[in-house]
Amino acid sequence: MGMVGGGRDAFIGPVHRIAAQMDNKIELVAGAFSSTPEKSRLSGRDLLLLENRVYDNYCQMFQREKALPEGERIDFVSIVTPNNSHYPIAKEALSSGFHVVCDKPMTMNLEEAIALNKEVNSSGLIFCLTHNYTGYPMVKEARQIVMTEGIGMIRKAIVEYPQGWLADELETKGNKQAAWRSDPVFAGASSCMGDIGTHCANLVEYITNLSITEICGDLTTFVPGRKLDDDGSVLLRFDNGAKGILWASQVAIGMENGLNIRIYGEKGTLEWAQEEPNTLWVRWSDKPVEMRRTATDFVGTAASSNARLPAGHPEGYIEAFANIYRAFAEDLSEVIDGKNDRSTLKDYPGSKDGLRGMSFLDAVVRSRSSDDKWISLNSAY
Amino acid sequence: MGMVGGGRDAFIGPVHRIAAQMDNKIELVAGAFSSTPEKSRLSGRDLLLLENRVYDNYCQMFQREKALPEGERIDFVSIVTPNNSHYPIAKEALSSGFHVVCDKPMTMNLEEAIALNKEVNSSGLIFCLTHNYTGYPMVKEARQIVMTEGIGMIRKAIVEYPQGWLADELETKGNKQAAWRSDPVFAGASSCMGDIGTHCANLVEYITNLSITEICGDLTTFVPGRKLDDDGSVLLRFDNGAKGILWASQVAIGMENGLNIRIYGEKGTLEWAQEEPNTLWVRWSDKPVEMRRTATDFVGTAASSNARLPAGHPEGYIEAFANIYRAFAEDLSEVIDGKNDRSTLKDYPGSKDGLRGMSFLDAVVRSRSSDDKWISLNSAY
Amino acid sequence: MGMVGGGRDAFIGPVHRIAAQMDNKIELVAGAFSSTPEKSRLSGRDLLLLENRVYDNYCQMFQREKALPEGERIDFVSIVTPNNSHYPIAKEALSSGFHVVCDKPMTMNLEEAIALNKEVNSSGLIFCLTHNYTGYPMVKEARQIVMTEGIGMIRKAIVEYPQGWLADELETKGNKQAAWRSDPVFAGASSCMGDIGTHCANLVEYITNLSITEICGDLTTFVPGRKLDDDGSVLLRFDNGAKGILWASQVAIGMENGLNIRIYGEKGTLEWAQEEPNTLWVRWSDKPVEMRRTATDFVGTAASSNARLPAGHPEGYIEAFANIYRAFAEDLSEVIDGKNDRSTLKDYPGSKDGLRGMSFLDAVVRSRSSDDKWISLNSAY
Amino acid sequence: MGMVGGGRDAFIGPVHRIAAQMDNKIELVAGAFSSTPEKSRLSGRDLLLLENRVYDNYCQMFQREKALPEGERIDFVSIVTPNNSHYPIAKEALSSGFHVVCDKPMTMNLEEAIALNKEVNSSGLIFCLTHNYTGYPMVKEARQIVMTEGIGMIRKAIVEYPQGWLADELETKGNKQAAWRSDPVFAGASSCMGDIGTHCANLVEYITNLSITEICGDLTTFVPGRKLDDDGSVLLRFDNGAKGILWASQVAIGMENGLNIRIYGEKGTLEWAQEEPNTLWVRWSDKPVEMRRTATDFVGTAASSNARLPAGHPEGYIEAFANIYRAFAEDLSEVIDGKNDRSTLKDYPGSKDGLRGMSFLDAVVRSRSSDDKWISLNSAY
Repeated sequence: MGMVGGGRDAFIGPVHRIAAQMDNKIELVAGAFSSTPEKSRLSGRDLLLLENRVYDNYCQMFQREKALPEGERIDFVSIVTPNNSHYPIAKEALSSGFHVVCDKPMTMNLEEAIALNKEVNSSGLIFCLTHNYTGYPMVKEARQIVMTEGIGMIRKAIVEYPQGWLADELETKGNKQAAWRSDPVFAGASSCMGDIGTHCANLVEYITNLSITEICGDLTTFVPGRKLDDDGSVLLRFDNGAKGILWASQVAIGMENGLNIRIYGEKGTLEWAQEEPNTLWVRWSDKPVEMRRTATDFVGTAASSNARLPAGHPEGYIEAFANIYRAFAEDLSEVIDGKNDRSTLKDYPGSKDGLRGMSFLDAVVRSRSSDDKWISLNSAY
Repeated sequence: MGMVGGGRDAFIGPVHRIAAQMDNKIELVAGAFSSTPEKSRLSGRDLLLLENRVYDNYCQMFQREKALPEGERIDFVSIVTPNNSHYPIAKEALSSGFHVVCDKPMTMNLEEAIALNKEVNSSGLIFCLTHNYTGYPMVKEARQIVMTEGIGMIRKAIVEYPQGWLADELETKGNKQAAWRSDPVFAGASSCMGDIGTHCANLVEYITNLSITEICGDLTTFVPGRKLDDDGSVLLRFDNGAKGILWASQVAIGMENGLNIRIYGEKGTLEWAQEEPNTLWVRWSDKPVEMRRTATDFVGTAASSNARLPAGHPEGYIEAFANIYRAFAEDLSEVIDGKNDRSTLKDYPGSKDGLRGMSFLDAVVRSRSSDDKWISLNSAY
Repeated sequence: MGMVGGGRDAFIGPVHRIAAQMDNKIELVAGAFSSTPEKSRLSGRDLLLLENRVYDNYCQMFQREKALPEGERIDFVSIVTPNNSHYPIAKEALSSGFHVVCDKPMTMNLEEAIALNKEVNSSGLIFCLTHNYTGYPMVKEARQIVMTEGIGMIRKAIVEYPQGWLADELETKGNKQAAWRSDPVFAGASSCMGDIGTHCANLVEYITNLSITEICGDLTTFVPGRKLDDDGSVLLRFDNGAKGILWASQVAIGMENGLNIRIYGEKGTLEWAQEEPNTLWVRWSDKPVEMRRTATDFVGTAASSNARLPAGHPEGYIEAFANIYRAFAEDLSEVIDGKNDRSTLKDYPGSKDGLRGMSFLDAVVRSRSSDDKWISLNSAY
Repeated sequence: MGMVGGGRDAFIGPVHRIAAQMDNKIELVAGAFSSTPEKSRLSGRDLLLLENRVYDNYCQMFQREKALPEGERIDFVSIVTPNNSHYPIAKEALSSGFHVVCDKPMTMNLEEAIALNKEVNSSGLIFCLTHNYTGYPMVKEARQIVMTEGIGMIRKAIVEYPQGWLADELETKGNKQAAWRSDPVFAGASSCMGDIGTHCANLVEYITNLSITEICGDLTTFVPGRKLDDDGSVLLRFDNGAKGILWASQVAIGMENGLNIRIYGEKGTLEWAQEEPNTLWVRWSDKPVEMRRTATDFVGTAASSNARLPAGHPEGYIEAFANIYRAFAEDLSEVIDGKNDRSTLKDYPGSKDGLRGMSFLDAVVRSRSSDDKWISLNSAY
């Protein structure tokens, strides 16, 4: 694995590194960790990498790695930079013949997403988008219950992602994370919806196996001076007639990383919250409420195979993240060995999910300035 | 107290009776408990009332009670019938000189609400609408925190009321509660929003001390054959610029009576859920999350004066309901004694709240068939 | 009903009054509310009683009431005084021909308990001891699950009752409740164990249907200057070989009224906590954890018949208390009408339970000063 | 790092490997993974180790590694075998000049523990015992609150560790973990108390900074045919006069890994549960209950420095385990570099803690067959 971004002070870069390497299937051997070559070198040193595998920039990395003998060079690139550079880096990585893991949202806008999805499809390479919350065992369990029709046809879905860290104008106080995420140049047309609203959209489509077709959104910028939205409410309509509500916020004081989802079907209800990830509540019309738990005997195969420890040993955010990397690594190994032509990939998000996310985001941003109640997502994506 | 409605098989009638009499300030002495005189008599007998105080219908009750000597006749009427008769009964009670306690929603439609509010105002009598959830001690605490600016200017409010009891077509299976609540003749233009959505709207306006000015609603009827909505999502805008989401549902399987509210201000967050009513969560920007509890030393006067027991002795739905009646009874006593000209009433919902509720409901119903994104509430009410 | 004790400033007296009268089956008509006649009169006035039914002391009340014509006089006495007077008052009430409801613990010591139990048995009258926690619907459910062998043979039981209100020397600061409860003259040989430890012992025997046979106790007085225990840990052994732990404390800061119990059987586990009384957790060896809830379709007859409201409308402490009174009142009515010879009484605690409690307390107090590990309860009681 | 034990089918071995390597400070390079050389080789291959660093047994490993040039050989040994071999392996490792990380309980019995502690002290090497639960950020926070006297003098401590996995005779059904843990040859004189009771004792002493001086224990074997205890209740007395209760069980059906602790001081209360490890409840006598959370701004330095992610990104069991390894690795690096003479070590459990644990266990086992109420721990350890 070679990494782009993720130098000192980064948040998500270190998470990718620990997650990727947790299962002894992936090793970080190269990186272009910063747009400043000197910072990249220092970060490489922190990570005990060989000096000649730490690069000034991603172009240099792709060129030089490509020139290394097979077996020595990196197999894939992990992209953990701000949103605006995802597309050019991913495009370059693919055209250099490297598989890609990319942080979300996939691109800056819908056009880039359409293009990147096409490039992935024509590349013969694997692309993994780290919508990491789908890696939690009990999210897998929720999806499996839905897919086996355990809760019947879905009527309603409510997904929320409240955070409170941007309740003040943190971006003006030297916080780098806050600065780029609220800057349209780096983040795109949305901050809150782009950063965490897309996680909501991905999660609800993943668990329900439905597609959002129309939305009615109300984005808001609560903190004076902020350039992008820091809160948004969105009504959802799904392709089976189900309705939904999506709420994402960065100004919900005291909320940490409160992603949660509730799915109401004709026969039952599912409830999951990211901050207590090892519990899935299942409410039935004909028996008492159930508390299903990671790694117990009472969960399905998808949940079981994504847990590492006996029940009651809490598995957290990094482990869920690592589940994404592990599935990707298993596919990668098969693809490299010629045992998999990419026709059947394991269960992790790819460029199509990234495209769905940007399509959702595009509609929400359009809704902000529209008087029309319902805005359709482009049905092609 | 004389009661209209609340005969055998009723749900809310018995609650009113226990709540009204809990504090030894009110006694049930008369009633017209059913539209069928025979049923009324049987219900009166169950309640050990004197036979001559059990009436065939409300008109008879008002006439005959009025004719009794002062001190012997009822002081007020409690109306616990289906929605469609609230207005005529209340109107008649007022014109007969009786104070009124009325179950919610106040009337069948906005026109009736406007009329009734006027009649209350010109009557010199007190009118109490049992939006009972505002009687909980920790709801009082939440409002007091807001009023003392504890959480700063409010930015966002989310209020939900999921129930699951109508997930199937219960109204066709002999359930009387389900039958009238889903029948436009008795319930009005909405079932779910009218029955429980109005509680949400009342609760959020009560705690935040804000007014909803615009809404964007998406009502749905999920159960085939049902005549009225059984689910609704509503985006809210408030008069201070705050945004909100309101969700009410009768088809959320496994949910009992899940009213809950979350208020996000510039300095803090409040969270309360009706099924664990003695806890209020307060999240701050500058200190750890607090769990405030009924009857502890750490709540304000409004909460304290609405608790009956030491901390840790759970106070429930009936006690909260009784708080509404107790405050009403104290006012009533003063008004009867000429010590209160109705200019300063205690803290319980009145006809103005009922008018607000019907104004909200009217806008939500209009939104159902409109392509306009935002529907304004009539600013006069 | 005539009440002894429960005047102004009392805690438990008002609870008894509301609970007794909640279901329209009992009416408070007489009382000797204080050992000071003047205070008794003032309390009677607060309660709107007829002046001639408010007495100077309990002896006067029993004599004069007895002299009233049948149908006018009280049927039973409710005793809500400090522990030391329970026995003489109950004895006198019984010998005056009145049925009795008595607050717990039943008496000051084991000898009195033995005597009172005998007197009850020979009196032909009904005696109800308000171990009120057994009135909660989900406590009933727990017992019913055990009785139907749902969780198999019981192996372990853990019952706790932490409170924090006496963490300081409140008894020296004018708090009347604290003063008598920590004074051996009024409370007996134990404060914490007598007041709340007996609730624990009663609850665990009630739910498990087992008898405690041996105990090993460690009572402590943490607050300097206090005369009685304010904390106690007790190991338990039951008659079927099960083991247990009982903990009661008045110095557990921040704890309100934290009675809770966990029962572990060969096939399942039950968990209940008084502060969230409408939930019973059931853990199984062969399926996911269940959350059972008051008034849902998924609880047994005992729980159902002890709930007053639809699911999700929280029923609290007073409602549970009222369940005890209601069952007593139904028996009383039958006994008075000659339809019940006391051979089959409804499910509420009686003098045998009081005797068990005092037998437990006696053993725990003996254990305090003993070097023997295990102290047997007298097997006769 | 070289590992002894932890081959295929092991539970704790893989946990040690992931935890040790999480922070890029430790690398597994050698191992003797099984008492069967063939199995050891296969395990080594799974782990992608060089064949010549996978050994037939630990003696061979120590000898050959010792013979390697400095810088190439392992620095320390991680011992993850059943209890009975901890002592001989650790002794041999120390005498071969290797630092040691050892799983708990430290040894088979008190004698071995006394000996090993001495050997560690005279070795000039570092010894780390993986009482991993002390690695959780909120356990660190709890200890820091106690150490800064936030909750005043401690009066009572309750620590529990219920599990349910041995509620049936799993050891006869081919489960290797169950087999050795319930076999006195491998586990020592106790199963439940040795395996998880020692975690309780360690946790309570760690957080309170107190020492258990006397115990009164009641060990039980509930499952017929089982050779060792599967449940135990223990009353505790601490050196400052505080009292306690410790409960550990392997037959508590439906319980997963329910370690939890509550500490009651003169000014406040702490509550922590392992299955929701990122929350610490703090109850105060003079303000509302606080919920403190990992990685928020409102926790102390010890908690902060043991978290890897922003608040709301759950950190679990492996991360806590890794905190132990990370602190050990930092010390190791300093000791190897001659910058630390072992006089000031970081905060992780060592041989003294192991000795305390065995001293506790020894007393509990003695208590099982004694009629004396209180059994003293040997004050020397």
